[in-house]
Amino acid sequence: MAVAEPLNIAIAGFGTVGQAVARILVAEHAERLRLTHVCNRRIAEKRVDWLPATVAWTERFEDVLASDVDVVVELIGGLDPAETWVRRALDARKSVVTANKQLIARHFAPLVRLARERGVQIGFEASVAGGIPVVQALRQGLAGDHLFRVSGILNGTCNYILTRMEADALPFEDALAEAQAKGFAEADPTDDVDGLDARAKLAILARVAFGYGVDPAAIVARSIRPIQAIDLLYARKLHRVIRQVSRLERANEEDHAEVLAFVQPALVPIGSSLANVQGSQNIVAATGRFGGETTFAGFGAGGNPTAVAVVSDLLAIAGGSVPIADDAEGEDVLAITGDAVARHYVRFTVKDRPGIIASLATAFCRHGINIDAVLQEPGLPKTRLPFVITLEECSASVLRRALGEIAALEFHLEAPLALPILD
Amino acid sequence: MAVAEPLNIAIAGFGTVGQAVARILVAEHAERLRLTHVCNRRIAEKRVDWLPATVAWTERFEDVLASDVDVVVELIGGLDPAETWVRRALDARKSVVTANKQLIARHFAPLVRLARERGVQIGFEASVAGGIPVVQALRQGLAGDHLFRVSGILNGTCNYILTRMEADALPFEDALAEAQAKGFAEADPTDDVDGLDARAKLAILARVAFGYGVDPAAIVARSIRPIQAIDLLYARKLHRVIRQVSRLERANEEDHAEVLAFVQPALVPIGSSLANVQGSQNIVAATGRFGGETTFAGFGAGGNPTAVAVVSDLLAIAGGSVPIADDAEGEDVLAITGDAVARHYVRFTVKDRPGIIASLATAFCRHGINIDAVLQEPGLPKTRLPFVITLEECSASVLRRALGEIAALEFHLEAPLALPILD
Repeated sequence: MAVAEPLNIAIAGFGTVGQAVARILVAEHAERLRLTHVCNRRIAEKRVDWLPATVAWTERFEDVLASDVDVVVELIGGLDPAETWVRRALDARKSVVTANKQLIARHFAPLVRLARERGVQIGFEASVAGGIPVVQALRQGLAGDHLFRVSGILNGTCNYILTRMEADALPFEDALAEAQAKGFAEADPTDDVDGLDARAKLAILARVAFGYGVDPAAIVARSIRPIQAIDLLYARKLHRVIRQVSRLERANEEDHAEVLAFVQPALVPIGSSLANVQGSQNIVAATGRFGGETTFAGFGAGGNPTAVAVVSDLLAIAGGSVPIADDAEGEDVLAITGDAVARHYVRFTVKDRPGIIASLATAFCRHGINIDAVLQEPGLPKTRLPFVITLEECSASVLRRALGEIAALEFHLEAPLALPILD
Repeated sequence: MAVAEPLNIAIAGFGTVGQAVARILVAEHAERLRLTHVCNRRIAEKRVDWLPATVAWTERFEDVLASDVDVVVELIGGLDPAETWVRRALDARKSVVTANKQLIARHFAPLVRLARERGVQIGFEASVAGGIPVVQALRQGLAGDHLFRVSGILNGTCNYILTRMEADALPFEDALAEAQAKGFAEADPTDDVDGLDARAKLAILARVAFGYGVDPAAIVARSIRPIQAIDLLYARKLHRVIRQVSRLERANEEDHAEVLAFVQPALVPIGSSLANVQGSQNIVAATGRFGGETTFAGFGAGGNPTAVAVVSDLLAIAGGSVPIADDAEGEDVLAITGDAVARHYVRFTVKDRPGIIASLATAFCRHGINIDAVLQEPGLPKTRLPFVITLEECSASVLRRALGEIAALEFHLEAPLALPILD
C-alpha cells in the first residue's frame, strides 16, 4: 500500500465528545489522522496541555475553513450554527463527520447532495446509538437483506430511568433525579424523557434501513413521565417489562410503502432483546426478509463511545471507503403513521366501587375492542386503586377514541395510561 | 451518480447457501448484481427452473474463469479444491466472496496479498457468524476503538444443545439427536461440538479485531460432550448458565502481545449478553478501551442469513467500497495461549464416603488453589454422587496439574469436569 499523508482534522466543539475524540487521536491512528485545529467559543477556557503544540486553537470557524484541514468534526450540536458550519465546510471541499442527530435527521438529503457535488464525504455514525456502529451495519453489513422492521432503545436516559424504577420500585421523579445526579440525564430532561431525542435518531435509521427520509417531527413521540412503579409491577405479572421503544416498520413490501413509526413506552417480553437492555445502554434490532432479526447493542452515549464512532468515520474517510449513501440521497420522504395495531395494557386509577369494570367493558365493547384480562394486585387501597385491563388487538386510534369516551366517566382519579404490548 | 453496469456473478457451489444467494439475486439488486454462472458437480441434478435462462450452468470451473464474470462466490467449503479455485479466480482478476471459514482462517494473508496484487477484492463476511455483519463491524464500525477482547458464541449447534439440555434437563445425547433431527447438527457433529468450527471463526475474528493472524490449530478447543444435565443444574445454583464460549484477549496493550484464545464450555452469569443467547443463535461481544462492550447477535448459520452476508459483500464490491483489510494483510502471526486465569467449577462424580472433600482440599492446597465453595444437591444417590467444588482464581495449567494428581485418587466414578467461571 502506498502510504498516504495523514488527514488533517479539525474538531469544532470541544466538549465531552470533542475532548474524547482528541484523546483518541493523541493515542492512536497518528499515521492516518492528524489533529490540527480545535475550534470553540471562549477558546482560552478550553485549552488543554495534553495536545501537541502544533494544534491551532481558534474561536473563528473561518480559520478552519481557510486552513488545509481535510475533515471537520462537528460536535457543537443543535441546528444553529451547526447547519451553516457544516454547509460551509462541505462547500470548501472539506469532509464532515458529525454526531449531530437533529442536523442529520432534518437535513440529510441536501447535505449528502452537497457533499457529493463537492467530492467529499459526510459521516454520521455517531449521530445514532453512540458507539454502536449501527449506521454502517444497516447500510452496508445488512445491505444484502431487505429490512422491513427496525426496533430499538435509542435513549439511554429513558432506559436508565425505567430499569431503575423497575429494580427498586422507584417513582419516576426519584429515578430521574438519580439519573441527573449520575450524569445520565440533563437538568432539562424533556428531549430525552419525552422521546424527541429518540425520534430524531429513528428518522436517521429510516434513512439507513429503508433508504428514504421521514419527517422526524411527524413521528409519534410519547413521554415516559406517566409511567409509575405500579406499571412495572403489573407488567411483570404479564411476564413483561416496560421499555421506551422506538420502532419503524414498513406497512408492506413495497419500497414506497407507508412506514409505521413511533417512540413510546411499551410492554416487551422478559427475555427479549429489548428487555435485556439494562441501564443507559442502547440496542437496535433490525429484521429482514432473509436474515431474520440481527441486534446491535452497547453504549449509546457518553464521550468515549461516541468518540469511537467519530474516529471510525474518520478512518473510513482516510481509507477511501464511502460512508455516504449511494442511493439514499433522494429527496423522497415516506409517509408515516403512528397508528399501530397491538394488544394494549391500560391502567386505570380509580376510587373503587361496584360497576366500574362493567362501565369500562361496555365502553370498550361499543368500539369493538375485546377485553383480554383484568389484573388487580391485592392489598392496594380501595380509595385510590390502580388496576389494569389488557385488551386484544386494536389500533391505537380506535383505542384513543374509546379512552376519550371513557375519560368522561366519573370514577377516575388519574387519566388512564395505555401502552402497547409488543411481542 | 453514474449508473454502472451490474457486476457479473458466478456461484460456485449450489447447495443451501448458494441457492439462497441465487434467490436473493433474482428478487433484489438487479441493477447492481447479475447472476451469470452456476458451477457445481453433477450440474444436471442441480438445475432449477426459477433462474433466468441467461444463467450458464457448468461443472467446469474453467468456464467461469474464462468468462466475463466479475465476482466468484465460493460456497463449496473445505480446503480442496476451494483454495485452488479461489487462487485461480483472484489470479484471473475476479473478486471473490466466500463463506469458507477454514480457508480464511488458514490462508487469509496470502489470499489478501494476491487479491491486492491483482487489483481485486476478497469478501468473507459470511465466514463468521452467518448473517451478523461482524467482520465489517469490527474492522470498520469499531475501527476507532482499540479492541482488547472479543467473546462470542460462534457455534449455533453447541448453543442449541446446551440451551435444550438446560431447558428440559436433557442428556447431551438426546439434545444432540434433537439438533440433528431439526437440521441444526450434522450426522458427524465433531466439528461443531468439539469446537473446531468455532476456533476457525475465532482465528478470523483475531484478524479483524486485532489485525494479526493466529494459528487456528493452536487455539485450545474443548468439547461440550462431557457436559451433563446436572452441570446445568449446578450452574444455575451459581446464578450461571453454561455456554460454549469462544474468546480472544490481548495479554496487554501492546499490539504484538500474546493473545489468550480458547473455545470451551464455561459458566457465564445469568443475564449476561452471552447467557441471553438462546437456541442456534450466535453473538459476538467486542470490548474496546474507549467504547466498552458492543454486542452483535443474530442468526449465525442457515442458508438465508449466510446469503445476506454474501450479498452484502457483493454490494460493497459493486459500490466500490473496500472490504479487504488495509493493514491486516501482514504475515505476522501472534503467539497464543489457552492458559486463562479464572475461577473454576469442578464437578466430581464419586461413590460417596467420608474423607473425599478432605483429600481434594489437600490436593488443591498443595497446588496453591483455594476452594471457594462445595455444592451438593440434596437427593442424589450416594453410590454415584455428582458434587461440585468452586475454586478461586487460578490458571488453567495449574488446575490441570492439580486435577492430574487428583485423578489418581480411587473414589472417582468419572473423570472430574473443570469449567472456567467467566464474569
